[in-house]
Amino acid sequence: MSDIYSDSLKWHRQNQGKLETALRNPINSKNDLALAYTPGVAEPCRVIAKNEPASFDLTWRGRVVAVVSDGSAVLGLGNIGPAAALPVMEGKAVLMKEFGGVDCVPLVVDTQDPQEIIKFVRQITPGFVGVNLEDIAAPNCFIIEDSLQDLPIAVFHDDQHGTAIVVLAGLLNAAKVVGKKPKDMKAVIIGAGAAGIAITQLLMGLERKNGQFVKNGANQVLGDVVLVDSKGAICSKREDLNNYKFSVNKVINTQKLCGSLADAVKGSDVIIGVSQPNLITPKMIKSMGKDPIIFAMANPTPEIMPAEALAAGAKVVATGRSDFPNQVNNVLAFPGIFQAVARFRITKINTAMKIAAAQALASMVTKPTADRILPDALDKSVAPKIATAIGRLV
Amino acid sequence: MSDIYSDSLKWHRQNQGKLETALRNPINSKNDLALAYTPGVAEPCRVIAKNEPASFDLTWRGRVVAVVSDGSAVLGLGNIGPAAALPVMEGKAVLMKEFGGVDCVPLVVDTQDPQEIIKFVRQITPGFVGVNLEDIAAPNCFIIEDSLQDLPIAVFHDDQHGTAIVVLAGLLNAAKVVGKKPKDMKAVIIGAGAAGIAITQLLMGLERKNGQFVKNGANQVLGDVVLVDSKGAICSKREDLNNYKFSVNKVINTQKLCGSLADAVKGSDVIIGVSQPNLITPKMIKSMGKDPIIFAMANPTPEIMPAEALAAGAKVVATGRSDFPNQVNNVLAFPGIFQAVARFRITKINTAMKIAAAQALASMVTKPTADRILPDALDKSVAPKIATAIGRLV
Repeated sequence: MSDIYSDSLKWHRQNQGKLETALRNPINSKNDLALAYTPGVAEPCRVIAKNEPASFDLTWRGRVVAVVSDGSAVLGLGNIGPAAALPVMEGKAVLMKEFGGVDCVPLVVDTQDPQEIIKFVRQITPGFVGVNLEDIAAPNCFIIEDSLQDLPIAVFHDDQHGTAIVVLAGLLNAAKVVGKKPKDMKAVIIGAGAAGIAITQLLMGLERKNGQFVKNGANQVLGDVVLVDSKGAICSKREDLNNYKFSVNKVINTQKLCGSLADAVKGSDVIIGVSQPNLITPKMIKSMGKDPIIFAMANPTPEIMPAEALAAGAKVVATGRSDFPNQVNNVLAFPGIFQAVARFRITKINTAMKIAAAQALASMVTKPTADRILPDALDKSVAPKIATAIGRLV
Repeated sequence: MSDIYSDSLKWHRQNQGKLETALRNPINSKNDLALAYTPGVAEPCRVIAKNEPASFDLTWRGRVVAVVSDGSAVLGLGNIGPAAALPVMEGKAVLMKEFGGVDCVPLVVDTQDPQEIIKFVRQITPGFVGVNLEDIAAPNCFIIEDSLQDLPIAVFHDDQHGTAIVVLAGLLNAAKVVGKKPKDMKAVIIGAGAAGIAITQLLMGLERKNGQFVKNGANQVLGDVVLVDSKGAICSKREDLNNYKFSVNKVINTQKLCGSLADAVKGSDVIIGVSQPNLITPKMIKSMGKDPIIFAMANPTPEIMPAEALAAGAKVVATGRSDFPNQVNNVLAFPGIFQAVARFRITKINTAMKIAAAQALASMVTKPTADRILPDALDKSVAPKIATAIGRLV
């Protein structure tokens, strides 16, 4: 691991980052200049002044997404601030282009006030087809994303929904591997931040609006979910819950389970970790139902190492890492999501679209096995497939 | 003219704008992904978290400029708003890359409140090496630019200083053509908005701070300037002056001239128009001193057509148009300015740098003639020459 860090540092310095701008057509003659700039450019300006949506067709707006971060929750590094978050956001922009074919600009903002970030995203709206919120800590990420759903462009927090989509895809295939129906499965989700809440939402068919969750049975995928944070299972007896945890608890955990993580996992079918290293023990896995499924996605060290989980009886193990089978990597989702946003000019990514994206992703593995429940992170046919699936719902 | 407009519209639609993002290195293998993104990217993040300026070396920040506009004063079109301004800003970004080799992102902001724009530019600072303010109406453009000079990156309003630099370069060569010393010349500037005020500043060696102008004799180029707006010459008897006009008047117009434009130009050596079509008459030119110099830069129709000016006795005529000799085009300045900002990591473009840029630009025409006082707008050797000249002052 230490080698990849020093290699990456050297590589970033050598290339002075990863992204650049480029011209779609060269400017070589006076005529080129007159078409692209003055005097010709006055005409697209006039057309857009009369009819703003024309800007999607006459400028790069129709092709370009902003990745916006305040650097408050970057990778496993925590609140390192906007400048230090830029390497991740630039990487996101690079993957958006390479895998989704979508132009993308990283914007790191020097404020962590959610109202200021909301205002910022509103201000940049006239120049973008969508905004990918990234690495913003909970609960601000919920406040910010929910407040911006009225915009005429798509605003999507990838750490929430990108993760949830890939988890759902993996889970659909893992269920096939163990021969269970998703509706019969109960999952324990460790971590009640951005990813944990969003995974819960997608698996249980919940809609969120202004911090309130409402169940829509038609979109429910799993039988039940128990959400666990650092204090244990989230349940009605807890008095330390923030609004989001309090509200989501009302529509999940139908058995009203309280207690520790170890208590929660007993008899469950799935554990999904988006939390801290080494939280899952072999004993916990042994206490689960038949053929346990473990998604241990803490980075870089998972909640339990795959070999240990398998030895304890797990049938399918996924992590966030590329050096183990079944990598849950957001790059499988966000490039396709934003390709759909650009291709179909989508202003809101709804639950049905997220489910369709997960199903399309799952369908790319024709015969799922314990070692292969997800496509390879480098598979460039994934994004167009997801975008097309979403497009069918527009 | 009508053909170039419809051609440009078709061209913009065909290409869906002009700019795109691109990767400096492809992502083809798991190792590429591990270097550019997780897990490797954590290391540049950690390095920047400890030492923010490392972001200039480890990300595209060191190479990328934001072009920021509120769309309040676009070309000759006026206040058409941010979405309609995007074709111009995207064009600016394209020219920045093509001529200056500087990556550039257009950001059109959905607010025209100067305090909000100031806040916006402060917020994007961690992601850029410089900010080019563009097409923001006076006096907001002065308030915004002046308030941002404390930032650790360069903030430069091109409509002011880019224009002023190219005008000064042209004027230095025009003075050679007519055999006069700049210090002996008196100019009348028509238009007291962003460009007119900035040209006055640069020609007279004025520093501006919080709306107040102070003369620095060492930087004074011309003998005197009289500034004229739609009401006539700016002079101490006027009671309708905004703060900027009032303050600048204290350090120019040494003869305390009042009256009409026709009164002001009598006996002058130069008329510089950044105003409205057809304001300069042959009679005015005939009333000027020997060998009049006319810069008639209203777009697309100049203050007087070149043929008419020459017939009335003008010796050198420049316009903003590419179909006449002596095109005063900002593309001769801003790509070199921002190349210097990126190469030398300049945080403030001072007056000495602007004069050095103008001198470098003027020096690229070895034997100035009445038909050739400026290099061609498409000359790609201009920007590096300007950047190098500025670099000598760092």
